[in-house]
Amino acid sequence: MRFFEDIEIGQRRELGSFAFTADGIKKFAAQFDPQRFHLDEEEGRKSLFGGLAASGWHVGSVCMKLLVADGQRQAQEALARGERIAIWGPSPGFRELRWIKPVLAGDTISFASEVESKRASEKRPEWGIVQARNSGTNQRGEPVFSLLATAFVPRRSAGA
Amino acid sequence: MRFFEDIEIGQRRELGSFAFTADGIKKFAAQFDPQRFHLDEEEGRKSLFGGLAASGWHVGSVCMKLLVADGQRQAQEALARGERIAIWGPSPGFRELRWIKPVLAGDTISFASEVESKRASEKRPEWGIVQARNSGTNQRGEPVFSLLATAFVPRRSAGA
Repeated sequence: MRFFEDIEIGQRRELGSFAFTADGIKKFAAQFDPQRFHLDEEEGRKSLFGGLAASGWHVGSVCMKLLVADGQRQAQEALARGERIAIWGPSPGFRELRWIKPVLAGDTISFASEVESKRASEKRPEWGIVQARNSGTNQRGEPVFSLLATAFVPRRSAGA
Repeated sequence: MRFFEDIEIGQRRELGSFAFTADGIKKFAAQFDPQRFHLDEEEGRKSLFGGLAASGWHVGSVCMKLLVADGQRQAQEALARGERIAIWGPSPGFRELRWIKPVLAGDTISFASEVESKRASEKRPEWGIVQARNSGTNQRGEPVFSLLATAFVPRRSAGA
């Protein structure tokens, strides 16, 4: 992960892709979102989704999975360069989550994260606050998912 | 589920409780949010969370699970009274998700949903748009989770 000083507005990270399979969609749904169009192909086809559709919480959780993997990759790269690693703070939440289009069985979603704003924390001088738009796009280039995440990011000066 | 006409601002549904176990927290984290404080008790204790903490996406997914169960309960009750069931539309998303306090292993979170606003859809006369605050409170009565959900709710007149 990067320090606050190293983050620039407009910076974009490609987080990688994830293939939503019928089996994966049904497993998540059975545990957390057992609505019929998330559990059964035929019910999905008859629904407004037009097919077996992933739970929106499944899509968000997969985005989180890829964000974490990307952060770990960045940390390993920093370590390999002999640099200090920035440990980000817990996220207080996010805004404007949008499920734009259904994610159907067989879809592959590519996720990305782009920095929208950054500012110093007034109350905590050792932290900055970064907002990033995390988004998912399907194999036809159609946006399917978006949210505006907030994170506390350590300032380089703080631990120096 | 209820029809748009039956929904009143301020209506509150208690959705039930969920006990977050160490095992459940680690299983979700291993799949979707493998950060050390979600995977290991000792790492959790050393972190800002102060203990093995559930992924925020786990908390949100459990809230969804209880919302779905509540909707199915309402549908069964309506059926038992010989009433028509309102089939809600897909959710376009939500706003203002807040992870207010950590959810730690051993915590039991009670979830509720309270209607904040309702309005007719201008573009689709057969639908109304309802906003509800879904929230979670721990066994000490402390709010831990909140989001403002948006749903398309069918109007009774539409299918009459």
